[in-house]
Amino acid sequence: PEIFTIADAKRGDIGNTSNMYAKAFFENLEFDSVTISPYMGKDSVEPFLSFENKYVFLLALTSNLGSEDFQLKEISNTSNKLYEDVILTSKNWKNSENIMYVVGAKNVKEINRIRKLVPNSYLLIPGVGVQGGSLKDICQNGLDSGLKLLVNSSRSIIYSSNDQDYAEKAMIAASELQEEMKKHMIDKGLI
Amino acid sequence: PEIFTIADAKRGDIGNTSNMYAKAFFENLEFDSVTISPYMGKDSVEPFLSFENKYVFLLALTSNLGSEDFQLKEISNTSNKLYEDVILTSKNWKNSENIMYVVGAKNVKEINRIRKLVPNSYLLIPGVGVQGGSLKDICQNGLDSGLKLLVNSSRSIIYSSNDQDYAEKAMIAASELQEEMKKHMIDKGLI
Repeated sequence: PEIFTIADAKRGDIGNTSNMYAKAFFENLEFDSVTISPYMGKDSVEPFLSFENKYVFLLALTSNLGSEDFQLKEISNTSNKLYEDVILTSKNWKNSENIMYVVGAKNVKEINRIRKLVPNSYLLIPGVGVQGGSLKDICQNGLDSGLKLLVNSSRSIIYSSNDQDYAEKAMIAASELQEEMKKHMIDKGLI
Repeated sequence: PEIFTIADAKRGDIGNTSNMYAKAFFENLEFDSVTISPYMGKDSVEPFLSFENKYVFLLALTSNLGSEDFQLKEISNTSNKLYEDVILTSKNWKNSENIMYVVGAKNVKEINRIRKLVPNSYLLIPGVGVQGGSLKDICQNGLDSGLKLLVNSSRSIIYSSNDQDYAEKAMIAASELQEEMKKHMIDKGLI
């Protein structure tokens, strides 16, 4: 397809296995990117970073309630929470320019902090719609001239109808979100 | 099969998706257990805990080098490392009696500490063989009368031969490990 594809598979395993997952998603399935959980560290993520024009969306701050359990815990002798430590540590990994970061939409105040940690990285913002995130809040807090925000809404579009009018309802839901985002970009003078 | 099966899939996603993964592994594929990454917290793991006679192996301390990146970091205002916080936090989740813990074999000193945190939980010890863990060290440090240790070796068995003698070579590799474990159990007077 001529669109950028993301396999939201949340993989992350020992290097040997991660390498096989990377081949599966990038070569066999031809995805452009895949979401990765950072828990197992450097050698679980680097195999995904060695492919040309392929990208990793590393989970930093997720949009679910359980994100508070570990991601928001502070690391001793630093002022960083775990999700910030994940971002800072991952910047030192090989081919880290291929890393983008997942930042849950409910945490709009954190988006600015993350933007400062990785000013040139794309941020993937899930959780708009069914999960409750507000597109307006995200744009007001996180959108700058780099325009490196990918705002995602899945269930509010794919579950917009279970009936025969599915295609039309999904199109309407997707278009509304696109129009709203365009409006916020105009309001901020970015386009 | 009449053996206990583990899907080493390292899943963990928002509740809605974790629930579908749980059904896939436990109902469709009929696995007895699955390995889960804790990064996304409570609501990413609990869907896997609500199945009768099905178990979660929660990643605590993994056997790869990258385990040092985050799992061994200390949480502020506690004396717990992240992997210990994962264990302690997960004990409060619904149906936590269905949780077993993955503890990488290279960290034999940590096995005793984890055993004290969860005296009645099974520990899955990967990394014996190709990944370098010593069965002797594990048994000396972690085996007690509860016998709640599952020691795993994958690559030293499944890659024992690429030739037509594969079945025989794999049997020999597996039997050697089994005999060695039996010897350590006899040495400690446990059987």
